[in-house]
Amino acid sequence: MKPTLYSAWRASAPYRVRIGLKLKGVDYNYSALDLVHGQQREAAYQAVNGQMLVPTLDLGDGVRLTQSLAILEWLEETHPQPPLLPKDPLDRQRVRTMALIVACDIHPVNNTRIGKKLAEFGIAQDVVVKDWIHTWIREGFDALEPLVAAHGKGFAFGDTPTIADCCLVPQVYNARRFNLDLTPYPAIVGVADGAAAAHPAFQAAHPNKQPDAVPA
Amino acid sequence: MKPTLYSAWRASAPYRVRIGLKLKGVDYNYSALDLVHGQQREAAYQAVNGQMLVPTLDLGDGVRLTQSLAILEWLEETHPQPPLLPKDPLDRQRVRTMALIVACDIHPVNNTRIGKKLAEFGIAQDVVVKDWIHTWIREGFDALEPLVAAHGKGFAFGDTPTIADCCLVPQVYNARRFNLDLTPYPAIVGVADGAAAAHPAFQAAHPNKQPDAVPA
Repeated sequence: MKPTLYSAWRASAPYRVRIGLKLKGVDYNYSALDLVHGQQREAAYQAVNGQMLVPTLDLGDGVRLTQSLAILEWLEETHPQPPLLPKDPLDRQRVRTMALIVACDIHPVNNTRIGKKLAEFGIAQDVVVKDWIHTWIREGFDALEPLVAAHGKGFAFGDTPTIADCCLVPQVYNARRFNLDLTPYPAIVGVADGAAAAHPAFQAAHPNKQPDAVPA
Repeated sequence: MKPTLYSAWRASAPYRVRIGLKLKGVDYNYSALDLVHGQQREAAYQAVNGQMLVPTLDLGDGVRLTQSLAILEWLEETHPQPPLLPKDPLDRQRVRTMALIVACDIHPVNNTRIGKKLAEFGIAQDVVVKDWIHTWIREGFDALEPLVAAHGKGFAFGDTPTIADCCLVPQVYNARRFNLDLTPYPAIVGVADGAAAAHPAFQAAHPNKQPDAVPA
C-alpha cells in the first residue's frame, strides 16, 4: 500500500520529507493541508497528528509517522539505497549536525504558529521578518556556511545528497521567500542552486510542483 | 584522551548529552559557560562552536561535535552498549519522534537567545513565561503525553532509557523552573520522577550536581 504524506506546499518540514521520499524512490499519495486557514488545527487532522503540525506520513493500518527528521531516519533504515547518511560515525555526526542546525535552531522559531503569536503580541510584520526571521536564519546559516564549505562537494556533505540537503534546500527556499540577502552564504547557495536544483528528486519535491501550490 | 563537554548547568541541550554520556559510561571533562553573562558569545567560545550554543563535545585533535541530538546519535553508534534506541525501525522512529518534539518544537523556541529577543521587543517577562514558554511546552507535552502513555514502561519508551528520556527529563526540569502546572501530564511526570529520578546516570547529570550549579 502506498503511504500518504500530509503536506503543505510551502512548509519546510514536509518539503524535507518529499525530498527524502523522492530520493529513495518511494511512491506516495499527497494530502494537502491549508495552513494559512488553520486546517491543521481542525479535529480531523488533530486525530491524525496530535501535534497539529505537518508532515505526517501515514503508512496505513493506523501507523502514522511524524517529525520530519525521524521520518528521514526511518526512511534511511527501511530503504537503505541510495544512502542519505555517510558510513563513518563522525561523518554521520556532521551531516546530522547540519540537518539539526536547520531543523532545531532555524525552522521551529520561524514557523507559522510562532509568527501568529508574535502578531498577537502586537509585533509588526516587517519587524518580525527583519528582526526575527532574518536573525535566526542568519545565525544558523553563519554556522552552516563554513561546514558546507569544508565538507560539501556539490551537495552539503560530499557529492551525493544527504539528510543535510533535505533540510538545507527547503530552508534556502524559505530564506528567499522572506527576502533574506544570501550573498554571505555562497557555499549554501551553491548547493541549493547547483547540484540540488539539477537533481530530479529535488525538482519533484519543490513547492511549485505540489498539487496545492498557489501560483505567484 | 577524555573528551571535554562545554556545558551550562541548567541548559537543556548539554543536560541531554550529560545523561547520554553517563548512561554510556563515558568519562569527560566539564567546561562551564556562564550563559547569563553571555560567555557563549565571546570570541573564545565562538572559535569552539560557531553557533555559540551549548553543548560542544570536544574530542581533542580539533574534533568538536555540536548539536545535542547528533551527539547522542554518534554516542549510540560509537558506544553501542547500553543501547539508547530500540532495534525495530518503527520503534526507533517513535523514540526519535519523542526526542524531536522536545528538541525541535519545545526547546529552541524557549531558549535564552529567544527570551532576550522578546525582551528587546518590549514583551514583559511574566507574559513571556505565561503566554510563550508555557504555551510551547504545553503544545509539545500535549503531543508527548499520549505517546509516553502508550509506549512507556517506566521510561518514555519501554523499560530502559532511550534518547527520548535524555530529552524529556531536562524538559520537565525546565517546565518546573518556569512553574508550569504538570498535572495534565502524569505519564511524562511519571517517567521523570520515577525510573529516571532513580537512575544513577540521570542523577549524576542533574543540573544541581554540576560544578557550575548556583545554589537556590
